[in-house]
Amino acid sequence: MQWKSPARWEELKKGINCPMCLDFPLPENPFSFLVIELQQSFVRLPKNQYYRGWTIVGLKKHANELFDLSDRQLLEYWQDVSLVAQALDQIYSPAKIDYCIFGHHCPHLHCHLFIQSYQSDPSVPLKPDEKEVILTTDEYVSMISLLRSSITNLQNAKKAKYP
Amino acid sequence: MQWKSPARWEELKKGINCPMCLDFPLPENPFSFLVIELQQSFVRLPKNQYYRGWTIVGLKKHANELFDLSDRQLLEYWQDVSLVAQALDQIYSPAKIDYCIFGHHCPHLHCHLFIQSYQSDPSVPLKPDEKEVILTTDEYVSMISLLRSSITNLQNAKKAKYP
Repeated sequence: MQWKSPARWEELKKGINCPMCLDFPLPENPFSFLVIELQQSFVRLPKNQYYRGWTIVGLKKHANELFDLSDRQLLEYWQDVSLVAQALDQIYSPAKIDYCIFGHHCPHLHCHLFIQSYQSDPSVPLKPDEKEVILTTDEYVSMISLLRSSITNLQNAKKAKYP
Repeated sequence: MQWKSPARWEELKKGINCPMCLDFPLPENPFSFLVIELQQSFVRLPKNQYYRGWTIVGLKKHANELFDLSDRQLLEYWQDVSLVAQALDQIYSPAKIDYCIFGHHCPHLHCHLFIQSYQSDPSVPLKPDEKEVILTTDEYVSMISLLRSSITNLQNAKKAKYP
C-alpha cells in the first residue's frame, strides 16, 4: 500500500474534505459507532472488534500533529483519552492499555486505545485490521452502553471530588 | 513470548525494581542515549535505529497509565512529547509522526515517536525491533546533538512568544 498522493495528503492535512471531520460526529458511520462526546473529542467504537475493546478517541477540530494544539486543547484532549482509558481499565482489567496515534490513512488526530490482556502475546505487533470481527447489534448496544455509563460515572466522581 | 509473571508485573506496576526508573536518567544505558531532560520526562535515542529517528519520551516519575497522572503532569508530559515531535518534524519532514505508548515489557509510562516517511508502506504494522541497526558513535553524537538543539531552539522560541 502507498500513501495518498502528495496533493491529496496536503489537502487532508489542511482539513479539506477530511472524512474524519465529517464522520466522527455521526451516531454511526461505515466503520464505527459514537459512544459519547467529550470536551475535545468524539469517542467511537469500531465495528471491527477483532481486538475486543478497541476504542478510538478522535479530536473534534481538525489537527494533524500534537504540536498543532494549544495548551488547553492538549490538556483537555488527553484528559478525554485518560478518562476513556480508565473506563476501559475498569471494564476489562487489562495487563496494559496501548495508546496509539497513527493517522497513516487520514492525518486527522485520533488515538486508538487497545486492550492488552494477559492472554495476548505482548511481543506481537499491532494488527487490528488483520481480521474483521463483526458483532451483533445487541452486542454493540451493550458495549456502547457499558462504556458510556463507565465514562459518565468517572466524570461524576471527578466532579464530586473537584466541584 | 509471555507477559511477566503476575507477581513481577504487580511489582513493576508499583515501581518496585523498575528498570526504567533506574536507567531513563542515565547518559547511556544498554538500549539508549539520553538526549535531554524536559519538564516531566527524559528524552532518549534508542541505539537500534532500524526505524531512523525513533525517539522515546519517558516519564520521570513512575506511573503506568495516563489516568495515574495529575492534570499538571498530564499537560506537562504531553507538552514534552509535542515539543520532541515538533523537533523531529523539522529534522525529518515526515508524512506523519506516530505516537505510541505500549509498555508490554515494562509498564513505566513512555511514548515512542516513530517517523513515517513517504517512502514507507503505511499499512505495515510497527516492528521497530524486527532488525537491529547500530550506528557509529559519530552518528549517534550527531543525531543527539541535532535533536537536542532543535528542542532547545523550539523551547526558546516558545519562551520568547510567551515570556
